Amino acid sequence: MLTLALAGLGTVGSGVVRLLQNNADLITARVGQSVVIKAVSAQNKNKSRDCDLKGITWVDDPCQLAALPDVDVVVELIGGAEGVARQLGEATLRAGKHLVTANKALLAAHGVELARLAETHKRSIGLEAAVAGGVPVIKTLREGLAGNQVSVVRGILNGTCNYILSRMRDAHLDFAVALKEAQDKGYAEADPAADIDGHDTANKLAILAALAFGSEPDLKNVHVEGIRAVTPLDLAFAEELGCRIKLLGNARLTEEGLEQRVGPSLVAENSPLSKIEGVLNAIMLRGNFTGDLMLAGQGAGAEPTASAVVADIMDRARGLTLNTFGVPLAKLKKYKAVEAANARYYMRLQVMDKPGVVADISAILRDDAISIESLLQRGQSVTQSVPVVVTTHEAASSAIHRAVDKIGRLPTIVEKPCLMKIED
Amino acid sequence: MLTLALAGLGTVGSGVVRLLQNNADLITARVGQSVVIKAVSAQNKNKSRDCDLKGITWVDDPCQLAALPDVDVVVELIGGAEGVARQLGEATLRAGKHLVTANKALLAAHGVELARLAETHKRSIGLEAAVAGGVPVIKTLREGLAGNQVSVVRGILNGTCNYILSRMRDAHLDFAVALKEAQDKGYAEADPAADIDGHDTANKLAILAALAFGSEPDLKNVHVEGIRAVTPLDLAFAEELGCRIKLLGNARLTEEGLEQRVGPSLVAENSPLSKIEGVLNAIMLRGNFTGDLMLAGQGAGAEPTASAVVADIMDRARGLTLNTFGVPLAKLKKYKAVEAANARYYMRLQVMDKPGVVADISAILRDDAISIESLLQRGQSVTQSVPVVVTTHEAASSAIHRAVDKIGRLPTIVEKPCLMKIED
Repeated sequence: MLTLALAGLGTVGSGVVRLLQNNADLITARVGQSVVIKAVSAQNKNKSRDCDLKGITWVDDPCQLAALPDVDVVVELIGGAEGVARQLGEATLRAGKHLVTANKALLAAHGVELARLAETHKRSIGLEAAVAGGVPVIKTLREGLAGNQVSVVRGILNGTCNYILSRMRDAHLDFAVALKEAQDKGYAEADPAADIDGHDTANKLAILAALAFGSEPDLKNVHVEGIRAVTPLDLAFAEELGCRIKLLGNARLTEEGLEQRVGPSLVAENSPLSKIEGVLNAIMLRGNFTGDLMLAGQGAGAEPTASAVVADIMDRARGLTLNTFGVPLAKLKKYKAVEAANARYYMRLQVMDKPGVVADISAILRDDAISIESLLQRGQSVTQSVPVVVTTHEAASSAIHRAVDKIGRLPTIVEKPCLMKIED
Repeated sequence: MLTLALAGLGTVGSGVVRLLQNNADLITARVGQSVVIKAVSAQNKNKSRDCDLKGITWVDDPCQLAALPDVDVVVELIGGAEGVARQLGEATLRAGKHLVTANKALLAAHGVELARLAETHKRSIGLEAAVAGGVPVIKTLREGLAGNQVSVVRGILNGTCNYILSRMRDAHLDFAVALKEAQDKGYAEADPAADIDGHDTANKLAILAALAFGSEPDLKNVHVEGIRAVTPLDLAFAEELGCRIKLLGNARLTEEGLEQRVGPSLVAENSPLSKIEGVLNAIMLRGNFTGDLMLAGQGAGAEPTASAVVADIMDRARGLTLNTFGVPLAKLKKYKAVEAANARYYMRLQVMDKPGVVADISAILRDDAISIESLLQRGQSVTQSVPVVVTTHEAASSAIHRAVDKIGRLPTIVEKPCLMKIED
């Protein structure tokens, strides 16, 4: 028998209880022993929950779960990079128990300290549920592609943003309206900042990059932009250019170092990532032997996330223990954080429709050695500003930012320019 | 140190040697020990190969590899359901060594006998490379979705067929021309029957179904159709209907039993499977907690297949041993083989363009309680036959086959009707 203690009984925690109960026979057959929840802890004992806690010990203080003598694995579903979640994670490993967690913020911020405790106490940290919910991307990176040097991890890692962008595109909604709709449907929090400003994606990207490249999570060097500035106009222009706009997390390992970036990007329609709509998540991994591999599925929600938590628990029951980031801490590499390499860019400018505007823009781009791929102007007006979209051939990131700065200061430019990368 | 013996040095075998050599440092760091090829065997010792065999013992008889005292894992890359491959597989497990194999025909035909030997001798069979090359679908089913009851496995499992269908669609080629092109590019064998008649897909589907549903591989109950009868006209009609034609392997577990089917199918353009073009493979798995999960990538070729072989070897080095079909043999379920449940169908008829033809067809469908969704007729001719396409609403498989039989016997139908399923 493998015994569990579970901290946090929100939507995912209740899902884990249901999964372990509903699929108990199948789980027992697959791992050769029963998997039993011995104790749970959550904020409010009397709250009505969508799961059956009969026969399970209630513990008021979640940190006490780590000390229970008859528990093999502690499942932390409290959340947050600090506080109780961190204390419980550390106490669990110190007590010689395995830790399973869905806590991306904790892992991105303190993953190395936790991994050190796991290594010292010869225990495992299961983190499948921390990234992309029901999509087993952690297992794929740490085991399925274990023979590969991975060079690129790119993905749609936040279902909230993907839902908002999908609805802005297919129903021509403004950002604020699509966000409200996502909140009404339970896809976005009352305070949506962590999702829409890209920080949730950044946490996940830092974890994936650490696993893919065998390095410490390096959250502070993830360049982060969110989706607040994306307009229906951008989505329409993107479509005209044969692209869709997605919030991508993008980590690339090159000779120069490690590039980590989160931002809205134009993805070509013939790329499978462009077809991932609604709350789905998808990740593309590039290995030096396996080539490009894509995984896509439910990135959040009670059931898919519970599926990931239980997969980690079952790995423990099957006796699999792995290094948290794929290799022992002493073997983790340090990579230099680098800016994005050359890329193609999309730039939307809101301009006063006067003779010479395009000439001014073109001259600035020419001076920074940036070559224009296409230029689209929609509408004409003598009184109002009109949008102009420029797409570039491959250009250096530094050059494009310099040029956009200069363009933004032209007197005929009436709004801050909107700049996005174009991904193949 | 984990030690290997490798039987078969064709494209995949050479790829495994290259991978283990090129990525040796990374592999050692990840599994905590070096992985070393001790011995190899292949048909022709003097053939020039794209890998370095220096320091590796050459053994003429591959079956002798199983008897080598200083070998932990034997990698079988010979192929074929019988003969040397089977003997080596059995001898390996009897000798208390782990087996890693890319041999789908062997596993589909004799997987249970091999699993029995593995169980008796407490060893593992690694079979990731047997299905979908570099796509870790075996690991995903056996581990990533381990907590789920899986109900559907559907996939594009044969890159040769997918390449041919992709080229027939995008370059408007006839089947024979596209096949020739695939052969010229090395994507199809000189004798392409195993691929284009669907048997390769059937082997893979039987293995995936066994893992997904915890049952013995049941190859003889896979209903198999190949792609020889697909015409450019079908591809054009499919496009008009918002679909693409793919050779799908489809296994579904229902209350009635297990349905396994391989055949060309119309896949709706908004389904991600429809976007998988060229030699790529893709698999959709439906779990009762994880929902729909899609994996897509390189399904064949030296490097991706070597990546799968090496992942299995690394699992052994990490101490992971698993039941071949996910559960011990005693826990395998027996499911009743059932025909496809209700489905939507596409039917292309070549008819003499005479008054009353459509009335005759409609009457037969009505008599079998099949409801027409659309009817397309292209061209008119008093002397030549013209194509008519009928798509149906959901109908019983038995009824549709009965109706197509009757329609095929109408005097105005000049060719055998072409019938395909429409998948959402």
